Amino acid sequence: MNTYLDCIPCFFKQALDAAGMNSIDPDVRRDLINEIARLIPDFDLSHSPVIMAGQVHGLIKRYVGKDDPYGEIKKTSNRKAMETLPRLREKIARAANPLRLAIEYAIAGNIIDFGAKTGLNIDDEITRIVEKEEQTISREKEELFQFDSFVRTLEISKTVLYIGDNAGEVVFDKLLVDEIHRQFPDIHIYFAARGFPIINDITTEDAYFCGIDSSAEIISSGVALPGCVLEECDPAFRGIFAESDCVISKGQGNFEALSDVERPIFFLFTAKCSVIADVVGAEVGSVLLLNKK
Amino acid sequence: MNTYLDCIPCFFKQALDAAGMNSIDPDVRRDLINEIARLIPDFDLSHSPVIMAGQVHGLIKRYVGKDDPYGEIKKTSNRKAMETLPRLREKIARAANPLRLAIEYAIAGNIIDFGAKTGLNIDDEITRIVEKEEQTISREKEELFQFDSFVRTLEISKTVLYIGDNAGEVVFDKLLVDEIHRQFPDIHIYFAARGFPIINDITTEDAYFCGIDSSAEIISSGVALPGCVLEECDPAFRGIFAESDCVISKGQGNFEALSDVERPIFFLFTAKCSVIADVVGAEVGSVLLLNKK
Repeated sequence: MNTYLDCIPCFFKQALDAAGMNSIDPDVRRDLINEIARLIPDFDLSHSPVIMAGQVHGLIKRYVGKDDPYGEIKKTSNRKAMETLPRLREKIARAANPLRLAIEYAIAGNIIDFGAKTGLNIDDEITRIVEKEEQTISREKEELFQFDSFVRTLEISKTVLYIGDNAGEVVFDKLLVDEIHRQFPDIHIYFAARGFPIINDITTEDAYFCGIDSSAEIISSGVALPGCVLEECDPAFRGIFAESDCVISKGQGNFEALSDVERPIFFLFTAKCSVIADVVGAEVGSVLLLNKK
Repeated sequence: MNTYLDCIPCFFKQALDAAGMNSIDPDVRRDLINEIARLIPDFDLSHSPVIMAGQVHGLIKRYVGKDDPYGEIKKTSNRKAMETLPRLREKIARAANPLRLAIEYAIAGNIIDFGAKTGLNIDDEITRIVEKEEQTISREKEELFQFDSFVRTLEISKTVLYIGDNAGEVVFDKLLVDEIHRQFPDIHIYFAARGFPIINDITTEDAYFCGIDSSAEIISSGVALPGCVLEECDPAFRGIFAESDCVISKGQGNFEALSDVERPIFFLFTAKCSVIADVVGAEVGSVLLLNKK
């Protein structure tokens, strides 16, 4: 999808958030904001928002003076989310439909997103995910949560590519990857992380930290953007993307990057802003399982 | 107060809101956003946010092609708020402390602010004001709601200057102006509106529309900004400001413009963003009656 003018205030907010998180000097913050302002007139809105986010976060890294300004918060998110794992695993095991519940937790986990939310509190967000109510989803329009179509696709798939999104959230992805592996042990699952640190998105390190390798082969997309823009991905990743029987795209950034790509993709994410909500025809906060054919 | 970097995303949002409200062509919106982006590097943050808001809304007027892009919404706000007047007037008359309740309604009315809020729905906001609970205020720290000091000042005042803020809200100001006039009939009350249309701020037309002239002398500050920046006001207004025994400054924009001025002022407003909430040491959404000495 292309970038909307409504995305622009958000880029400034992300920069201010990152600067605050890293206790950056006020004068440096001012320079960072000015640089972002100077990017705007030349930015091509026909590109995906993750391209502009990549430029903005490139500036953030430079002004913050770190390759991974969200490094600490990513570690904290992973660690805190891991504490919920035994409890949620038990809930899934006892559920009437374990796969469905695992999907719901995985999508609910998508609210851990430092790009989309200002002043996000990890403990509060994890509590929200753990206490999520199944009703949130069943109330949605059917075309926005295509569970049956998802199961039917898994039933005939030999390879699945699961494109991950954020730290913390990755722990809830693990629940789903494990459940797919349990129910469909013959499927080879690839789990893809970003190639380089960007916002609080996962790299392969985060995927290994929560042990996704027990059910899936962890790979890197090679991308340095907060969404899987194919032209920027490694050729090896692009090959797996093209040849997998089922592609699961997790999170809003991957939706922004992949929504116009010509192949069937299941998009699992929470609509976190009105731009995305309008694009898919849902409410902000909706938990979505879209089947793009 | 000076402008914070956190105010910058808000200026873009205001422009996008105004463009949406006036169904502006996408290309024109893009040009408007680019112009605002070009303003940022040169903007002096030591100025009040209302100065930058003035520049941004000057551009909005030019790109929208109207002197009063919020004209329609101001009329609707006034009309809908007027419908609540008989009911609230009766509540105030029956209250244990009518002046206190009138103040609370006046401050609650400050949530009608198209500068501070995206996608504001007038009906919802007015319902929130009318149904406001007294507890919201009594929970605040005492220094943030200095009612006793306000009453004591009125008791020894011969002239009061009440600086109004937004359309719709002005109807709730009328309740307070009327109550001050009823309890202190010897006080001469000036009620000041902006000199020119800016966002949904009131001009004298709005003050006359809701009949504030039955209790107060309606004047114009002469200012074309969404806050009472004294250097930009008419000399006649500045004289009244200097000589009034009590100055009541309504709304966040007037607080932003007047908080550093050397004279006692009572600031009545709702803290609508984290920047202001941090400056005064309150929570976002707090109903405030500050006594700046």
